[in-house]
Amino acid sequence: MPEHLRVAIVGATGYAALEAVRLLEQHPHAEVAMLCSRRDPQPLFSDIFSAMRGRCDLHCEPIDAAAIAKKAEVAMLCLPAGIAMELVPALLAAGVKVIDYSADYRLKSPADYQEWYVREHTDLEHLDEAVYGLPERFRSEIRTARLVANPGCYPTAAVLGAAPFVEAGLVDPQDIIVNAASGISGAGREPKQEHHFPERNENFEAYKVGEHRHMVEIERMLDGCAPKGRTNVLFVPHLVPMERGILTTTYLKPLQPVSVEHAAQTLAQAYADEPFVRLRSGMPCTRDVARTNLCDLTVRVAKGRLIVVSAIDNMVKGAAGQAIQNMNLMCGLDETAGLL
Amino acid sequence: MPEHLRVAIVGATGYAALEAVRLLEQHPHAEVAMLCSRRDPQPLFSDIFSAMRGRCDLHCEPIDAAAIAKKAEVAMLCLPAGIAMELVPALLAAGVKVIDYSADYRLKSPADYQEWYVREHTDLEHLDEAVYGLPERFRSEIRTARLVANPGCYPTAAVLGAAPFVEAGLVDPQDIIVNAASGISGAGREPKQEHHFPERNENFEAYKVGEHRHMVEIERMLDGCAPKGRTNVLFVPHLVPMERGILTTTYLKPLQPVSVEHAAQTLAQAYADEPFVRLRSGMPCTRDVARTNLCDLTVRVAKGRLIVVSAIDNMVKGAAGQAIQNMNLMCGLDETAGLL
Amino acid sequence: MPEHLRVAIVGATGYAALEAVRLLEQHPHAEVAMLCSRRDPQPLFSDIFSAMRGRCDLHCEPIDAAAIAKKAEVAMLCLPAGIAMELVPALLAAGVKVIDYSADYRLKSPADYQEWYVREHTDLEHLDEAVYGLPERFRSEIRTARLVANPGCYPTAAVLGAAPFVEAGLVDPQDIIVNAASGISGAGREPKQEHHFPERNENFEAYKVGEHRHMVEIERMLDGCAPKGRTNVLFVPHLVPMERGILTTTYLKPLQPVSVEHAAQTLAQAYADEPFVRLRSGMPCTRDVARTNLCDLTVRVAKGRLIVVSAIDNMVKGAAGQAIQNMNLMCGLDETAGLL
Amino acid sequence: MPEHLRVAIVGATGYAALEAVRLLEQHPHAEVAMLCSRRDPQPLFSDIFSAMRGRCDLHCEPIDAAAIAKKAEVAMLCLPAGIAMELVPALLAAGVKVIDYSADYRLKSPADYQEWYVREHTDLEHLDEAVYGLPERFRSEIRTARLVANPGCYPTAAVLGAAPFVEAGLVDPQDIIVNAASGISGAGREPKQEHHFPERNENFEAYKVGEHRHMVEIERMLDGCAPKGRTNVLFVPHLVPMERGILTTTYLKPLQPVSVEHAAQTLAQAYADEPFVRLRSGMPCTRDVARTNLCDLTVRVAKGRLIVVSAIDNMVKGAAGQAIQNMNLMCGLDETAGLL
Repeated sequence: MPEHLRVAIVGATGYAALEAVRLLEQHPHAEVAMLCSRRDPQPLFSDIFSAMRGRCDLHCEPIDAAAIAKKAEVAMLCLPAGIAMELVPALLAAGVKVIDYSADYRLKSPADYQEWYVREHTDLEHLDEAVYGLPERFRSEIRTARLVANPGCYPTAAVLGAAPFVEAGLVDPQDIIVNAASGISGAGREPKQEHHFPERNENFEAYKVGEHRHMVEIERMLDGCAPKGRTNVLFVPHLVPMERGILTTTYLKPLQPVSVEHAAQTLAQAYADEPFVRLRSGMPCTRDVARTNLCDLTVRVAKGRLIVVSAIDNMVKGAAGQAIQNMNLMCGLDETAGLL
Repeated sequence: MPEHLRVAIVGATGYAALEAVRLLEQHPHAEVAMLCSRRDPQPLFSDIFSAMRGRCDLHCEPIDAAAIAKKAEVAMLCLPAGIAMELVPALLAAGVKVIDYSADYRLKSPADYQEWYVREHTDLEHLDEAVYGLPERFRSEIRTARLVANPGCYPTAAVLGAAPFVEAGLVDPQDIIVNAASGISGAGREPKQEHHFPERNENFEAYKVGEHRHMVEIERMLDGCAPKGRTNVLFVPHLVPMERGILTTTYLKPLQPVSVEHAAQTLAQAYADEPFVRLRSGMPCTRDVARTNLCDLTVRVAKGRLIVVSAIDNMVKGAAGQAIQNMNLMCGLDETAGLL
Repeated sequence: MPEHLRVAIVGATGYAALEAVRLLEQHPHAEVAMLCSRRDPQPLFSDIFSAMRGRCDLHCEPIDAAAIAKKAEVAMLCLPAGIAMELVPALLAAGVKVIDYSADYRLKSPADYQEWYVREHTDLEHLDEAVYGLPERFRSEIRTARLVANPGCYPTAAVLGAAPFVEAGLVDPQDIIVNAASGISGAGREPKQEHHFPERNENFEAYKVGEHRHMVEIERMLDGCAPKGRTNVLFVPHLVPMERGILTTTYLKPLQPVSVEHAAQTLAQAYADEPFVRLRSGMPCTRDVARTNLCDLTVRVAKGRLIVVSAIDNMVKGAAGQAIQNMNLMCGLDETAGLL
Repeated sequence: MPEHLRVAIVGATGYAALEAVRLLEQHPHAEVAMLCSRRDPQPLFSDIFSAMRGRCDLHCEPIDAAAIAKKAEVAMLCLPAGIAMELVPALLAAGVKVIDYSADYRLKSPADYQEWYVREHTDLEHLDEAVYGLPERFRSEIRTARLVANPGCYPTAAVLGAAPFVEAGLVDPQDIIVNAASGISGAGREPKQEHHFPERNENFEAYKVGEHRHMVEIERMLDGCAPKGRTNVLFVPHLVPMERGILTTTYLKPLQPVSVEHAAQTLAQAYADEPFVRLRSGMPCTRDVARTNLCDLTVRVAKGRLIVVSAIDNMVKGAAGQAIQNMNLMCGLDETAGLL
């Protein structure tokens, strides 16, 4: 490994790529070596993101595995689902470590992928090899992985909140409701009527009730925690008129009465020594974790339910920050490098 | 009854009072005749609310039942819980019809009031007489009432959404979760650290998880709909960085599998001919009902749950608009006067 | 004239049209009789604006002067500049009164139009006939007009603020700076990258410095007030992360020292008895005039300058509200009908 | 000087202190060694700012010069004007370098201080010694200073924009108008009615027109640039519904016609090699500089005026970031350490 880890960011014109570039600016042992996009002609990065003028004036380049392998040890793929899996085999073959921000390698079952992404998975070999990049659950596997599937933003918040209780067998795995809310950056950078400022401001709504693709991702992850391997998760996301942040409020059904102290202890044990999980006695809020890689968690017990509240920055712990955390692990760096 | 109904607004320095004054400006058969406050010296209304300069320049007056009875047929009490019940007996005795925005007359059981408002109820006689002012459920009682307890903002949205399903016996009355979100006007006009603009903007959080006083109000209302008279409601509110609007996302457990068509029909039957309930095929959002007395509703079925989404303007259908709807009913006016 | 004035809104898919429909809902003597758009297929109005479901479910119709003349006495044109002037001759010939929201008939000089709108004016006859629809300056002409050019949003605020001082000869007509700020609805309903919520929120910027088309409109209007007929206006607009509202801060240079009392008196005399101009001792703000047809004004004197601050709702006094005020005048109704 | 520079932050419960702590977290050669406040009992920093839990859990301590001198080489005073000057003499005597965020040492003339801050200056000796901490103008003096007066937020933006033109003698020093707008964090952390979220959101207004204390600070700084030593500045600030950011739009009067190219060149020459000034061909906006120590600048020429637009983050280049830039210079560190 060289002195400075060289990172290629592929699909450089979206918010996740911008956040990755910003975070890598602060990284002591890694740097942005290359930006790639699917645009033609290729843009100057700082023409896309005017805030980066003078801070990152790289020109984007075409997406070419061989070219990437010459300039970088790690590729972060910020491409839509379906496109990423076309590129991954060549990158891995060229010896590049890959962190894929899309959903292409998150669902182990090709049938799940087919059902929810409505296309056939075309890289089953690496689907099998890929590690789900949630370090709090798969740290050791990530350390040796060549291909990491960076988790979705909602699943990061929801799984970190619910997994300890499912795993401890404290709650009914068939009765899990994840109510979530996200800032608008989660909807991407493409302008849309419903995210036009005058329509989005002073507005709050639910969307894709029980139909959002992150539902299956959350469920499969929690399946992996459940003693009998199968959970049932209802996921309902909402949109908040703010730029960034996700808060999940998860409703779990204790199998037997549980005290809030015991519930809090379950969280504390699960996340002892975790550098980016912060247990709170008060209520987590998105502002407290904005622009950090932290996940703030708390738990309450009321009316026969156990309620877990989880807050992350969807662009950091929910995307680029977690990708860097994964990169640090994959490359033998301090896991927190550039993130504290 | 005179040509023009004269209304006294008591407790005139908060947001609900402002909204009542604004709505009454548009009312064809009613007018603001008097404003009362607990301040000393009494302020000019338009010094409190600069937007009203030249539109309502009344001076506030002390709160005195006899004086109110001379100037008005109806009193709207925008006072804190605990204060309202000190004034109601004298107003009723003086022949004034009363619409109380506080919680003082919403909970029929003095024990519930004692438990949740941590004080003894001091007007049990009128507590018994008071009608809960949700016209979609208690229209005929409201028509003849002298004292109406105007519902809480969250309960209005939650009960309108859940009641038809509880009443139809379609869902488990013991398994009701109301996840809600509100704009900040719901927290009142008093400046607080947590609602200071730089702290509230770009922030989303849960609060009073399972502890909010509106939980018991929702539960008691749904109790009244349940075939066996008893429900169990978990209520979790959140704060959204916007001025106004409430959205409730209510999770119900069907006792037997139910289709979304059947669920939608249940709503449609419950609210046929209701002037202020609007059934939506798409998703309700707070923007669509802002500054209206409408409640937008939709229902979905997913993962073994029935999910009802309900949107209102917390200041209108959740406060002053519903109060005017009640006033119209109590005074024999067209229910929709001034509200469409 | 019929009992109820029938209004056609032409170009019904933008924000100004929506605002016109909302305001006409409240109008005691006028109603929306027809909506026209350039889309194909023609949309249901409430499919474009979901908030209007059940409130205005008209289907849009093609733009046809004869059809409009059958259904309406007045047409409000919410079309882009350049399109409006293609339609106006036929509407006038068919006996329809026209209020044009575009800039097509605002600039009396075809050369100005050519320079700033970069196209030739094709309806010089009616350009000459058209009246600039600022009632506070041209009330009597509006009363008898068939064609009114509804003023731009910025010019409404700026001209109401500056005109009295220019007209009184108190200030140097060659030294006028209008610094303005607008909510984002002023930029229209078409989604654009720069108005995508995550980019617009938490952002403030100047745009079109000295190049905005409203600059010439302000200047020509002030020319008409200047004793020697010629002013020089620099106009610099800014964008505020809010939905609606315009505030102009206008810097004037007194020809001789002037007291703030004298300046305030100049405003007071100019706007005595004006129903929609509100002189403030405190500072105007956009919130105080939101959703009203009011223009709030104040004046200060400092450092050798006279500073006029003016606030309007860009969608109301700056568009649809002023259009209705003009319609009321043109049709012999009470000028304030539906607007107070 | 030790390996790691130890910094005491005095007056640790406001936004500027929070920002200083956050920035120092990233600084490679400095650290927060002590937090002091005027509160009794002294709070835990992370109880004041919940976001800092686990990131900075220092307890605040009483303000005591001797105690500070033991723990820190540099003190950053985030105290109100009037309080800072009571502490500075003791800190300097104890050998601590001081960066004062208040206005106490910004105005060289005690008469100016008396007039604008309505109290007598009680530390004339150090007032004389203090250096105005705008590195782009006083870099060499700052390097050797013991006491730096950290500039106001508005003056930083305004002076960086206007100074090059005043200094070059291109513009009339008697005709300078600074129109500015700020996010609400500039108003401090104390909750106030006018900054309560529901009142501040969707609102834009001017305030303290020609009366803001930063006006004299801007004027005195520009006096120092003017060939004949005397300018006349009118300053009008506005409030924007956003957390952070300042944009100044400055209107200058060229003494002779000037091209925009020449104007741009004047800026380019003034700021060649400046690490934190970024000349833009497009328009600066507050979002582009948010959470950076950058000042974005551009210039336009229109209608006989030269218009300079300047954007900073009021909490960074307008407060804590500039303070760290000054600290770096005073302590022989790389000027950009911790800031890029």
